[in-house]
Amino acid sequence: MRLDEAAAVTAVADGRWTAEIKPGWDILGNANGGYLLAIAGKVLVELTGRPDPVTVTAHYLSPGRPGALEITGDIVREGRRFATARVTLTAGGKPVITVLGTFGDLSDAGGPDHGDLVPPHMPHPDACVSLEPTATFPPPFMGKVDLRLDPTHAGWLAGQPGGQPHVQGWFRLKEDEPLDTNALLVAVDAFPPTAFTAGLPLGWTPTIELTAHVRRRPEPGWLRCSFTSKFVTGGFIEADGEIWDSSDRLVAQSRQLALVSTG
Amino acid sequence: MRLDEAAAVTAVADGRWTAEIKPGWDILGNANGGYLLAIAGKVLVELTGRPDPVTVTAHYLSPGRPGALEITGDIVREGRRFATARVTLTAGGKPVITVLGTFGDLSDAGGPDHGDLVPPHMPHPDACVSLEPTATFPPPFMGKVDLRLDPTHAGWLAGQPGGQPHVQGWFRLKEDEPLDTNALLVAVDAFPPTAFTAGLPLGWTPTIELTAHVRRRPEPGWLRCSFTSKFVTGGFIEADGEIWDSSDRLVAQSRQLALVSTG
Repeated sequence: MRLDEAAAVTAVADGRWTAEIKPGWDILGNANGGYLLAIAGKVLVELTGRPDPVTVTAHYLSPGRPGALEITGDIVREGRRFATARVTLTAGGKPVITVLGTFGDLSDAGGPDHGDLVPPHMPHPDACVSLEPTATFPPPFMGKVDLRLDPTHAGWLAGQPGGQPHVQGWFRLKEDEPLDTNALLVAVDAFPPTAFTAGLPLGWTPTIELTAHVRRRPEPGWLRCSFTSKFVTGGFIEADGEIWDSSDRLVAQSRQLALVSTG
Repeated sequence: MRLDEAAAVTAVADGRWTAEIKPGWDILGNANGGYLLAIAGKVLVELTGRPDPVTVTAHYLSPGRPGALEITGDIVREGRRFATARVTLTAGGKPVITVLGTFGDLSDAGGPDHGDLVPPHMPHPDACVSLEPTATFPPPFMGKVDLRLDPTHAGWLAGQPGGQPHVQGWFRLKEDEPLDTNALLVAVDAFPPTAFTAGLPLGWTPTIELTAHVRRRPEPGWLRCSFTSKFVTGGFIEADGEIWDSSDRLVAQSRQLALVSTG
């Protein structure tokens, strides 16, 4: 099933939509956070009347199980260039995620370039590690997208984590589904957690919040994605993502905050 | 006037508050973004019943001029450990900022430490550059907080920008006002823009969105703050902040997205 179909939403009333968390888009029974964000993104496009996320923040409130979602949303401000709106996805009366987003039209993204605008180097996708899902690990979600891990940072798959909280690799949708800016919201949360790949003794690290900034629409083809964590302290870990398209342009950045076990 | 007073809010009805943007907390007539966020933070503490911001995202919608604010807010979820709520500050019927925050109690922040948990090195505050406001530049806001710029990154003040989009220095409140976690929301937006200090030819860079993650309550004393931008592209620039307290602990991270002129 294509992302576009899996993330589909249906308007049912003014400010109300329904959707469905499809089976298989989960990590151990909980819907992937980027997939939930892509569902919210569809509603935000409708609410704002703008095609592209510019900055989107999701707070993860409870696990999303496969099944019906009710969605409420309202617009906060409509400007000339951007519009800002918020949506909440609820399942069985329980909020799953709430999202605040500013949307615009990135078809004419331009302006000056400064900085180290060079995508991360990684081997060709065919020389990278494909995560094929099983009933347990890797989780079913990995079968919904095409993910190829840079083997330099995939030692943890063989029980030899590298110690560095960094993971990078390639991402595309299956069935040659075109990548739009909404698909970038999936890419920023599709990779294994850095704490996991580093072998840090942190256990499960549930995401509390994720913010994605989209700089431009991606060109067709593979995305190169890299995720790095700097600080585990105070009971939290952050992970910063960078997403580059096939024309070597930065298309998105992300940061997420996750909980680590305290003790 | 202390921050605590300048950011004060008054509950007027269920889900409604008033506040006032005080004169002098502005940059060229527009209220500083961190100051506006601190006003929102006060409401979020009341709404959530939790003392500390954990992750807070503000979208800046229109300039905040000195004068009356109307504030609306609602709670999205109350959990055992965290509560999530959202507020919008409006002036004269026009939304100024809208904020989504998850709050908790950070008095027992703990857990394991991993990563390069070393604060940035900088000269003693007395050997740094104090920004004393004038009618034009530095702006009035600089008189409301005690900011000391590391001279290594302050060449732009003498018309010799360093080229690197990095600025760092010390921050504290005036009149020995204690630093709480709400004051960190001011610290993350108190420094001159990195594009400015680097001398990048970008002109004004208005903030669209700012997210702050608070890891723990700061110990009394000076904060060390550093801000770095990596990427100017697509018409946007991001700036990442790190805030360290007097006990050498990371207390907050921030990222903001700002607009640059396109063309």
